[in-house]
Amino acid sequence: MATHNLLLLPGDGIGPEIMVEVKKVISWFNAQGGDSFETDEGLVGGSAYDAHGVAISEEDMAKAMAADAVIFGAVGGPKWDSVPYDVRPEAGLLRLRKDMELFANLRPAICYPALADASSLKKDIIEGLDILILRELTGGVYFGEPKTITDLGNGQKRAIDTQVYDTYEIERIAKAAFEFARTRNGKVTSMEKRNVMKSGVLWNEVVTATHKNGYEDVKLEHMLADAGGMQLVRWPKQFDVIVCDNLFGDMLSDVAAMLTGSLGMLPSASLGAADPKTGKRKALYEPVHGSAPDIAGTGAANPIAMIASFAMALRYSFEKVAEADMLDKAIANALAKGLRTKDIASEGTKVVGTSEMGDAIIAEL
Amino acid sequence: MATHNLLLLPGDGIGPEIMVEVKKVISWFNAQGGDSFETDEGLVGGSAYDAHGVAISEEDMAKAMAADAVIFGAVGGPKWDSVPYDVRPEAGLLRLRKDMELFANLRPAICYPALADASSLKKDIIEGLDILILRELTGGVYFGEPKTITDLGNGQKRAIDTQVYDTYEIERIAKAAFEFARTRNGKVTSMEKRNVMKSGVLWNEVVTATHKNGYEDVKLEHMLADAGGMQLVRWPKQFDVIVCDNLFGDMLSDVAAMLTGSLGMLPSASLGAADPKTGKRKALYEPVHGSAPDIAGTGAANPIAMIASFAMALRYSFEKVAEADMLDKAIANALAKGLRTKDIASEGTKVVGTSEMGDAIIAEL
Ligand SMILES: CC(C)[C@H](C(=O)O)[C@@H](O)C(=O)O
Ligand SMILES: CC(C)[C@H](C(=O)O)[C@@H](O)C(=O)O
Repeated sequence: MATHNLLLLPGDGIGPEIMVEVKKVISWFNAQGGDSFETDEGLVGGSAYDAHGVAISEEDMAKAMAADAVIFGAVGGPKWDSVPYDVRPEAGLLRLRKDMELFANLRPAICYPALADASSLKKDIIEGLDILILRELTGGVYFGEPKTITDLGNGQKRAIDTQVYDTYEIERIAKAAFEFARTRNGKVTSMEKRNVMKSGVLWNEVVTATHKNGYEDVKLEHMLADAGGMQLVRWPKQFDVIVCDNLFGDMLSDVAAMLTGSLGMLPSASLGAADPKTGKRKALYEPVHGSAPDIAGTGAANPIAMIASFAMALRYSFEKVAEADMLDKAIANALAKGLRTKDIASEGTKVVGTSEMGDAIIAEL
Repeated sequence: MATHNLLLLPGDGIGPEIMVEVKKVISWFNAQGGDSFETDEGLVGGSAYDAHGVAISEEDMAKAMAADAVIFGAVGGPKWDSVPYDVRPEAGLLRLRKDMELFANLRPAICYPALADASSLKKDIIEGLDILILRELTGGVYFGEPKTITDLGNGQKRAIDTQVYDTYEIERIAKAAFEFARTRNGKVTSMEKRNVMKSGVLWNEVVTATHKNGYEDVKLEHMLADAGGMQLVRWPKQFDVIVCDNLFGDMLSDVAAMLTGSLGMLPSASLGAADPKTGKRKALYEPVHGSAPDIAGTGAANPIAMIASFAMALRYSFEKVAEADMLDKAIANALAKGLRTKDIASEGTKVVGTSEMGDAIIAEL
């Protein structure tokens, strides 16, 4: 029986509170016998800055590199709004993504049946929605150099960010998109701005070539990213897998998440390449939502996205598909019973706190 | 009595068809006496490429520079999908924006009462919506250099796009945002990604400084652009004026346009700086929608966004506010009578073609 090593990085704001609920879930799985999970914990974001003056310490980075999976909460908050750029809370997350080479970011946008009414969109538009945004996560304008602010004199400064993509970076995310589409509805929509950006031209070219090279059973469609944003709002069910670069993925996945009305519910997985020897991938799992500093400490945070992120870990890092399905089902059941945290409450439902929601999900397991 | 010179650039796809309706509107205004409009016509986009091998000829560029306003249709279509990058249809539009220095792009997202049901969003979320997206239009990743694709050998290419912003570029669009907000609900939301992009850091800094420098009567709020996309979907009425860079503006204004359910209805204005001597601004007016090649030639295109773009020209280039209001009212009246082009048809309304819709609006004048 295997032991899996998890590094928990709760981070800032509501991060630590929702991580407590994941720990309960982990204990529940450990108590069942079978494979077990060993957890270690570290600091990231503002809390790491407060302790070490950096957004993640070298020691915690080393732990992350060695772990079988990293379970990440959320980072940031007004407290750290004016810390130096290089050590701002987000730098911790960006370093994890880059150093662990987590190039494939999976952001499922699904509409939980019990929450179809919570969306700002009409029910028929989003009911049953199940799309996957696959975002390239280690390239593009997030990491390209130069990335500078220069003083030009005369009261003028010049800021530069650089969007860079190489063929291999686009190819590996395109392959991942086609492979995920095969396990879903067999369709990939690639989004870029080839009419304005050279990286969009190369993106389009490489995705098209990759498709021809062994993936022609999957349907491929190209869409300009601005039109894609529109189409997400107009009729999101037309999509199955959407693949795009780091910045477009950031924007489009947030729009998609909000469509479902289930923002506090949506998990994500960031995966590296499979090790040629062991087949293992480095991986980090985190909720799509942020650190919500305004409600931190009130016990009102919704732990579901965090728990669902652990379900993704079961699925993608530990091949425990049955267990992942079971955990996802437990979440859906708790919702179906009418339990809601404040962010998703509606008439006729029962509002519970973070910890009660965690307990209710475990009770359903 | 003044004569105003308009350059009409119908472009591709449905562009020429909807421009015909604007010409009717212009004739109507000319027939009333008072100031008159003289029109000249040119080619842009694919149609310019077919005639001259470029996306806009030097002659037409010169006419655009000299005109009091340019009225622009739409460009692009599958026919030109594989023409060289430098002469692709969009290059004509981008050159007009850049050479005319049209740095301020106004994209109102309003929900026509008669169309509140056409949106994919719930009626209470979008009914009465009236926001203005102010997009920086001559800087950022659209024009920054280097913008290249390089062959690295080994089957690898590298694509680079460069996002560049100088202080003065941010300052002038921020000023415009505050000034528009004063004529509206007095609130500006500035959107960037300062947590990832240096241009976001500078953007935030300059907008904040500009605000302190004479605009503190306007309420200023900052939002990360991804969160902004979410908030647009969640509760768009929280916004008044949104100001952002070229690429975020492209994405966010398209999402905002689709929220209203009135995409075929939305006009835009692109304005340059006021000439220090004459006070005049270079200006280009165009619908937010594209060239819709799939319906070109069928007589089904919706001419409203194009006509409303001419109303914006009356308002912003010719200080004809009463006339602009009258034209906007005529559009609303034609809709209130139940006339619809196919794209906005719904039960109980009467579907009409491009030319009938144009005539109906003129009848309301
Ligand atoms: C926190 C921030 C750096 C991050 C990003 O921009 O990638 C976040 O918005 C996300 O989408 O995970
Ligand atoms: C046609 C294209 C170059 C253009 C842009 O990206 O700016 C369009 O999408 C727009 O928003 O006006």
